[in-house]
Amino acid sequence: MAKRRAATRTTRAGLPLIVLSTEPGLTLQDRIRRAVREAVEAGTLPAGSRMPSSRVLAGQLGVARNTVVLALQTLLDDGVLSARARSGLYVAEDGGTPAPRLETIGGPSEANPHQAWRGRFRSAEIERSAFRLPPDWQRYPFPLLTAQFDRSLFPVREWREAQRHALSVREMDRLTGSAGEADDPLLIEQIRTRILPRRGVSARPEEILVTAGAQQALFLATELLAGPSTHAVVEEPGNPDMRRLLARRGAKLQLQPVDEAGLVVNAGLSRADIVYVSPSHQRPTAATMSMPRRRALLDSARENDFLIIEDDFECETHYLDRAYPAIAGMQTDGRVIYVASLSRILAPALRLGFMVAPPEMIEAARRLRTLVSRHPPLNNQRAAALFLSLGHYDAVMRRLSRVLRLRLLALRDALNHYLPQWVAIPPIREGTTYCVQGPPDLDSAALLNEAAARGVLIEPLDDYFGRADPPRNMFRVGVTSIEKDRIREGVARLSEAVRALTMDVSAALPADGAGSLRGPALRKAMRGATLLCRTVYGDPCTIELAPDGAMSGRAGADGEDIDTGRWWVEGDLWCRQWTSWAYGEVSRLRVRITGDRIEWFRPEGGSLVDAGVLARTD
Amino acid sequence: MAKRRAATRTTRAGLPLIVLSTEPGLTLQDRIRRAVREAVEAGTLPAGSRMPSSRVLAGQLGVARNTVVLALQTLLDDGVLSARARSGLYVAEDGGTPAPRLETIGGPSEANPHQAWRGRFRSAEIERSAFRLPPDWQRYPFPLLTAQFDRSLFPVREWREAQRHALSVREMDRLTGSAGEADDPLLIEQIRTRILPRRGVSARPEEILVTAGAQQALFLATELLAGPSTHAVVEEPGNPDMRRLLARRGAKLQLQPVDEAGLVVNAGLSRADIVYVSPSHQRPTAATMSMPRRRALLDSARENDFLIIEDDFECETHYLDRAYPAIAGMQTDGRVIYVASLSRILAPALRLGFMVAPPEMIEAARRLRTLVSRHPPLNNQRAAALFLSLGHYDAVMRRLSRVLRLRLLALRDALNHYLPQWVAIPPIREGTTYCVQGPPDLDSAALLNEAAARGVLIEPLDDYFGRADPPRNMFRVGVTSIEKDRIREGVARLSEAVRALTMDVSAALPADGAGSLRGPALRKAMRGATLLCRTVYGDPCTIELAPDGAMSGRAGADGEDIDTGRWWVEGDLWCRQWTSWAYGEVSRLRVRITGDRIEWFRPEGGSLVDAGVLARTD
Repeated sequence: MAKRRAATRTTRAGLPLIVLSTEPGLTLQDRIRRAVREAVEAGTLPAGSRMPSSRVLAGQLGVARNTVVLALQTLLDDGVLSARARSGLYVAEDGGTPAPRLETIGGPSEANPHQAWRGRFRSAEIERSAFRLPPDWQRYPFPLLTAQFDRSLFPVREWREAQRHALSVREMDRLTGSAGEADDPLLIEQIRTRILPRRGVSARPEEILVTAGAQQALFLATELLAGPSTHAVVEEPGNPDMRRLLARRGAKLQLQPVDEAGLVVNAGLSRADIVYVSPSHQRPTAATMSMPRRRALLDSARENDFLIIEDDFECETHYLDRAYPAIAGMQTDGRVIYVASLSRILAPALRLGFMVAPPEMIEAARRLRTLVSRHPPLNNQRAAALFLSLGHYDAVMRRLSRVLRLRLLALRDALNHYLPQWVAIPPIREGTTYCVQGPPDLDSAALLNEAAARGVLIEPLDDYFGRADPPRNMFRVGVTSIEKDRIREGVARLSEAVRALTMDVSAALPADGAGSLRGPALRKAMRGATLLCRTVYGDPCTIELAPDGAMSGRAGADGEDIDTGRWWVEGDLWCRQWTSWAYGEVSRLRVRITGDRIEWFRPEGGSLVDAGVLARTD
Repeated sequence: MAKRRAATRTTRAGLPLIVLSTEPGLTLQDRIRRAVREAVEAGTLPAGSRMPSSRVLAGQLGVARNTVVLALQTLLDDGVLSARARSGLYVAEDGGTPAPRLETIGGPSEANPHQAWRGRFRSAEIERSAFRLPPDWQRYPFPLLTAQFDRSLFPVREWREAQRHALSVREMDRLTGSAGEADDPLLIEQIRTRILPRRGVSARPEEILVTAGAQQALFLATELLAGPSTHAVVEEPGNPDMRRLLARRGAKLQLQPVDEAGLVVNAGLSRADIVYVSPSHQRPTAATMSMPRRRALLDSARENDFLIIEDDFECETHYLDRAYPAIAGMQTDGRVIYVASLSRILAPALRLGFMVAPPEMIEAARRLRTLVSRHPPLNNQRAAALFLSLGHYDAVMRRLSRVLRLRLLALRDALNHYLPQWVAIPPIREGTTYCVQGPPDLDSAALLNEAAARGVLIEPLDDYFGRADPPRNMFRVGVTSIEKDRIREGVARLSEAVRALTMDVSAALPADGAGSLRGPALRKAMRGATLLCRTVYGDPCTIELAPDGAMSGRAGADGEDIDTGRWWVEGDLWCRQWTSWAYGEVSRLRVRITGDRIEWFRPEGGSLVDAGVLARTD
């Protein structure tokens, strides 16, 4: 007949569990000594902590108290433990005499027990970029990086507010419930009505899945859609992790070139099953895919029956008034899997992204997500949802866009000022980064070190190239982690590093200035001249030098960028000062004219600074 | 020469992006009408919201303002928009005349565009248990579940405190930095020094990886260690998601039986490459693996050169004073990958777990984790670390253990009281659940519905069995989501459901009580009798009926559970009342004796309640 246990044992959860090894040849007392010593070394019994009493230890280990007392006495003798009057035994502050480190988790180690481990791995090893940021990168004075987060731009106040709401009693109740496979419906709704409309995308709730950053969305998509028979087209250069994800699935990779209008759409796509594209700001070139190119891609997808994975990883930062819609918003037949993140507007560390796709795809991705990691943490989903619903998204996006745009312009101007003739950047106006093409003989790996030695961090581009021989003279500079006012100095130091590595001695003027124009000849050559130059980003720039010393300049594709200034001659040096261009500073330079080519040199050292063409005056 | 852009365009981020379809055969005006209508239907332009002005819209769409005005006028006529005096156009509250729903993300839909989607999936579809909790399961009065979280046990105050610390300026600074591949060092340290020692495991920081719940750790381990040539041994019954993860990798599965001492270790393991085991509380049986079995498993691993994946998913809830150490803490050669979670002590929704393994394995798992999802969110890692470092772990664990242990005992007693003769449960004393074996003819799927109709939720076990013909008469009841005081009523209702489905009419007493003992004969048969019974969990129980009406009982393997009471006869009914057993209530029953078999029946209906044996008196 029914009955009930009366006894309830108390737990002693505070006691670390000391486990005796079963190794043969050791006495029980030795085993206790060894276990305690190992626990001290491993920090399980921290220095200065009080030891459990011999009675408690004997109970826990299931051995006679005497054995424990003897073992503890030896440990006291060894200096591992120390005794305090009327208070028992403590772990010695200096840990006693040193003993070999634990080599394995668990008990005492055998020699090199892990030699065989590598052979155990059944999946291919994941290749990793040789480049890794220094762990203390935030302490470098000039981090010219992108994709890293600027703590000064994090909406601290707004995020705190959202988190506080998420800690309210009602929300906590929700948090502690179980969501099964579902996401926070409030976050889905906020993505649906606040974020996607800005990108021209309409989606129903069952067409949205929250993911652990955009990265998990890409993982789910490749895992579901790619296999050994899949022909996958990726951008070259492009996202290296996408190549790795596809390679893991055994897919055939086709590296499709990227130009200033984004992924090149041509007959090369005819065999594609999947095309991966980052149209908003191509990674790494930051090129925005043109509208005709977007339409051509959709047409090609229909014609050749492929799916498009659209990575809109910077969906939150579009500076222009009339942003191009996402390709997912232009389609008519559900071929696009749209992937985006909240990393820019919140922080990458929160790992929140999402996927938009037809319900069949979302359902399959949800199952796979559940199997591999369940769902992104619900407390963060809710806090992000509250952040969005409190209306912070637009305000933070506007602030971010404004700040990043000004930084990007500052970076462009600095590159133009300090590295004309040396580097080229694409003519993009969005994004947070420039891909820089250096002189042919530049070794970007060496530049990385040279720059870092000057406090400047830049990012190599090798990893973005899928081909075996990536260009060695390219690198990337970005503005997500550096204040606007520091950009100029950072680029100035970067230019020193570039010059140190690529100084073309043959291009320099002799130390005595031989070959350059002197006093009156210089003045004569420059009076009334029209100089035709190019900016580092390829725009034309025309400068008129009036005989009276006035100077005017027009730059840009439509000559829309205008400035005025003054020029003069001091001895054998040509001098100029713009009102706002070139930071409004005075430059003093030597000038050499060869035919219609004009070159400017530093007076000290004689290195080439810039060059241009003398316009025809006939 | 260098220059600088002066113009900075303002962004108008607040404006939803309306995208015109490029479908042929539509006028521009029609396209605008259609785009606005679709935006209204999709909620992009919510009912009652104000429309952008025709000027703004014309600018955004790049079309003449007149075209926009005409399109808006038609939408006004359609009732999609409404006009308010001096205030412009608004989206109508009723949305205007209904139009077909959007079938795809993006533009207008083609007929059934997603028919082809399923054919696109290159990986096998993930099988999913037919059973899913009702979404509003928390509103059921008697959720006899496990693995779901009890909001009343969530350490709300402590978690809020940790979260508040994590929102401090210093911590926010950290959050907004980038961790690369690294975890929060403070969380690693807390796991290393506070959690692992309780399980007898020592580990260095490079031997620990934080994961998105234990589930991600299992995913990483199978992904790295299993392939088509892998012979993987799993528990039967066992974790269905582990079988699915291994199946995805094409591994050969061996279903190894589980008994009361956990996974059976025998020659069947000789071909194993990987053995998956949940020794603390086997899932689903909750059996704790015995120490000899643990040692035998480690010996077998060495002998047969296999790796062990130890799933300690309930590592936080061990009730006994002398918990068995984790197998990872007993090994000497780094063969064990230890996987655990913080889901019980915090909440499953936070998705925090970890893996402990040799550095080679952690390094490979870290790379893979980075590729598929980077890292678990750093704000939660930090909050959990602070929660632990503030010393809440031990206190919460003690509270949890105490509460859950009392609930488990209450569940056991209730099953014993309401379902003797009908069900059997294993003799476990830890964990949060019982696997219940019902009568052979019980259909647990039908019972699920019968029980739910009575407000009781139980979990089927089919999904835990890998074999094709899982026992249909088993189910699981648990205590993680129900208060102790509700358990008895829940089990009482469950017993009604069991009886409704399995009533064995042949075992019942006829309505007139024919065959049962009457008044004086009943008293005579019971006076001085000794009754030998069994509890539902298999323990013996001996009851002595003294001639004077006193009654004493001893139960348990060592007879350690003792109670006393009184018995008497009322008419043809035998009556008894224990002091504490059977809730101290009076029972009135009919009695039938056949040879040495004694059976008790309900007076109403005559259904069999319990049975036992009359002890020999010679």
